[in-house]
This record gives sequence, C-alpha cells and structure tokens, in this order.
Amino acid sequence: MARIAYVNGSYVSTANAYVHINDRGYQFADGVYEGISIRYNKLIDLEAHLDRLWRSMDELAIISPMGRRPMAIIFNEVMRRNRIRDGFIYVQVTRGVATRDHGFPDYAKPALIVTCRRLNFDAVRQRAASGVAASTQPDIRWGRCDIKSTALLPNILAKQAAREEGAFEAVLVDKEGFVTEGSSTNMWIVKAGHLITRSTSDNILSGITLARIKEIASELDITIEERAFSVTEAKEADEMFFTSSTNCTMPIVKLDDKKISDGTPGPVAKRLLDAYFDYTDN
Amino acid sequence: MARIAYVNGSYVSTANAYVHINDRGYQFADGVYEGISIRYNKLIDLEAHLDRLWRSMDELAIISPMGRRPMAIIFNEVMRRNRIRDGFIYVQVTRGVATRDHGFPDYAKPALIVTCRRLNFDAVRQRAASGVAASTQPDIRWGRCDIKSTALLPNILAKQAAREEGAFEAVLVDKEGFVTEGSSTNMWIVKAGHLITRSTSDNILSGITLARIKEIASELDITIEERAFSVTEAKEADEMFFTSSTNCTMPIVKLDDKKISDGTPGPVAKRLLDAYFDYTDN
Repeated sequence: MARIAYVNGSYVSTANAYVHINDRGYQFADGVYEGISIRYNKLIDLEAHLDRLWRSMDELAIISPMGRRPMAIIFNEVMRRNRIRDGFIYVQVTRGVATRDHGFPDYAKPALIVTCRRLNFDAVRQRAASGVAASTQPDIRWGRCDIKSTALLPNILAKQAAREEGAFEAVLVDKEGFVTEGSSTNMWIVKAGHLITRSTSDNILSGITLARIKEIASELDITIEERAFSVTEAKEADEMFFTSSTNCTMPIVKLDDKKISDGTPGPVAKRLLDAYFDYTDN
Repeated sequence: MARIAYVNGSYVSTANAYVHINDRGYQFADGVYEGISIRYNKLIDLEAHLDRLWRSMDELAIISPMGRRPMAIIFNEVMRRNRIRDGFIYVQVTRGVATRDHGFPDYAKPALIVTCRRLNFDAVRQRAASGVAASTQPDIRWGRCDIKSTALLPNILAKQAAREEGAFEAVLVDKEGFVTEGSSTNMWIVKAGHLITRSTSDNILSGITLARIKEIASELDITIEERAFSVTEAKEADEMFFTSSTNCTMPIVKLDDKKISDGTPGPVAKRLLDAYFDYTDN
C-alpha cells in the first residue's frame, strides 16, 4: 500500500487514513468502487471506468461528491504523490456518514477514498506464461451483479475457497451449471479458434478489460460468441482464460482436477495478452 | 447516536470514532453484526445474540477479538457511559485491516465496534397500536442470508423502495412468490388463530425476537406452523406482523394496496406484543 491516500477531501498518510464508523459503506456495504490499472503513469481505460462508476452510483442513487474531471485529477495526484508508474488506483464512493437506518438518509454527504499501489506487470506476464489453476465455486451472489458494489462478501468467500483448494481464482457457477464470472474477473473460453464469453447483460459485471479484449479480438479478426457456457464445456475447451484490470488476460490451465487442453496456455490467450500490452503500453 | 462508542480497544467520542480505510468491513463487507435491545438497563436475550454473533463469525472464519464475557462487559460499559436505559446496542466485528486482496489475510486483527442509541419503546408500542404499511419487494439477496453479515446493500435498497412507496417495511418475496423475511425483520401471518412463519433453516436469518416470540406463543398455547407462505396467502391472512429487536411485534395492516383483514391490528399480534413486553420488562 502506497504512502499517501485521498480521503474525503484530504491527501493523508495511509497510516492515518480513516473513515467514520457510521459511514454506510462500513455498516451496510452501501458503496461502489473501481480499480484502474496504471501503466507508464497512464490510467488505462479511465473514461470507461468513470462511466461504470457513475452508472453504479446512479443505480444506487448515490450522488457523486464531485465531477469526473476533479475525480480524475485526484487519481493522477494520488499516483504522482506516491510515485507510482505501474500500479493500480482504487476508488470507493459510499453514501456517507449517517445514523444507522436501512433507508437512505437525506442529509449524508457521499464519501470518497482513493488509494493506489504498485503492481509489477512483468510478474503478471510471467504468471500468464505458465497460466494458473482455477476452481469452480457456487455463485451465491445477489441479483444485481451488474453493480460494482462493495457488498463483496460472496466474492471473497469464493476466492478464499479457491485459494484453499490451491487455485488462483474462483470460477463462479450458477445453479444450472453455467459459468457466470470469476470472483473479480470475467471468464472466457476458446473453441475452434473463436471466443466464448457470457453476455454482460446476464447478471454479471460489465468488465472494462473484457470490453477492451473484445475490441482487440475484433481488430485481430477473432470471432466472439456472447453466451453462457457450462463448466463441462469449459473443461473441454481448447483454452480458458480470465480478464481483469490487474490480471490483463490470464490463462487458466487447470479447472478443478481437469487440465485445460494440454495444461499449458494456448495461442489465442497469448495473442490477446500481447495485443493488450501493446494497447496499454503505447 | 450516543456520545461514546467503543472502537478497537478504546472508548471514544462518537465524533472521533473512526476505522481505517483498509478495514475489510469497508471495502469487502467482510464483517458481521448484531443489534441488541436494552430495556431498563438490561440487554434483552444477550446470550442468544452472542450465540448468533459467534455463529456468524464461525461461518466466515473470523476469530473474535475477545471472548463473550469481555464483549458483554463492553456492551454494558457503552450502555452505562451513555446513560442509556432503553435503547439498542450495535456491535460489528470485521476481519480487520489488511492490504486489499479478496482472499483472507493471515495477519489481520479482527476489528470490533460497539455503539448504542436511545430508543423509545413507548413509541414502538404506539406504532404497534395502529400498525404499519408494508410493501412487497423482490428478494434479490445472496444465498447465505443465515449469516448476519454487513453485506446489506440489497436490504437497504428494499427498505428504501418500500419507504418510497409510503411503507414502513419491505416484505421480501422470492422468485416463487413466497415471503422470505423483511429488510431487517422476520415475517409472520395468522390464520384461524394459529401462526405461520418461514422456517429459519430456509435461507433466512434466525431471528432472536422470532425465537422469543415462538417461545411466548408456545406458553400461550398458540400453535405455530413453520413453513413458507405466499404473498397471496399473506394478503388473505387474518393478521400479518413482523418481529425484530427494535420493532418487537409490529402489525402490518396493509400490504401493497391490500388491507390485511379490516386494516387494524389483530388480537394475536397484540397478545404477543403484550407478552413480549412482559418478558422484556420483568
């Protein structure tokens, strides 16, 4: 964690970065967030992240404490003060401090925190070169996974369960046996050279990296089928990978006890990862 | 909100009651809570609340920062320092402060906050004398509603939606049209003199007041059927009411646009409320 954080109007030492116990983010998960990667001092897909943050706030009727431009200035200032060239900006907006009551208060001032941390994208690239194991976990989340809210308890439980099974990421599976997404990532498979990924209108988060990879795939003339795929289908796929701001395009080489293809990253995921780094680094 | 709060080892002014921004309760809703009512300086059903708090922590593998007795001492001390005779203790335990990462940290020290506030139980009794309106809202919560977690975003959205429709409480309804519970309460109906309430093994919270009312009903020789009931059944019931620590036994006299019976509180709810106050006040 970097030294300086932005908390409700001030740049403070992270050691002294506090919010009130009656912040509704703390007692009700009444907040939304974004994670934005930083490459060579540039915020990757900033506008798309701001669009999604504003959409999440709109869905919860949280009024942003400031406009998009002032917020972007804070992101850059947090990045600058912490001297982060490659890393990750975390921004969280909550409904603010109010006496505990389930209904929305009419007087709370929304709270805003912005932090950042360093991230080694070479390590991400190295991890992608060998791929990771994933494990299936039941998707027991709520009905509005399109909102990027801080009510992440099911996500962290799934991630932890996966980790305890020796896996790097959880693959969330709905009651019908279809993959929804990862604990904090979007899931993809490759079959006969074309990509399959669940539609983002199907109660999953509309991933920013997912959208970027879709564009890149289109430029590379790789076709995409937007539909739900089952765990069985995933285990028999030619490739499987997930996308997220910090993992970019990460091959899954083993799902539960089943190797995906020959258990090494496939050519499509590699090609997309290279193209994604071309995009972020230029 | 009372003047003094307990926060991670200290009794502090509520105005200065802060937690770190990296408290996982703030970023992941990685925490649990209880609300315990206070009548004549006595914590009502304290042991049952502690049992449930410990169960919630166990389910999330959060290690309590202290034992039950020291925690109860803090509840009493917060009550005493704030001179609360009739009110409400709020306790929240989170997994603690850690660098943001979905999986559980192995070094975080669980965080504990305890607050209290005054509550006028005469006002509750008055409200119960006229009853309240409720409105049905789709239950879009996650699959582990048995855990009293702070991931309450769906609950607050339901409560707010109900409030915007002029109702006091939301009646959550599953996809099959059956009532699950309220936004922070348990739901009951009365038919031909006997009580019907959903089984607490059916993905709802095991209400402490619900359990107490079950005991009281049994003492009063009122039979209870533990099963799911539909919205249609509720609208045609002789009585409908909900239970919670702060609402005790609250009659619902109108559900959406339909009056329950003649639109006034019924005799069974009244009898249970009187018996509940007899229990808490003696």
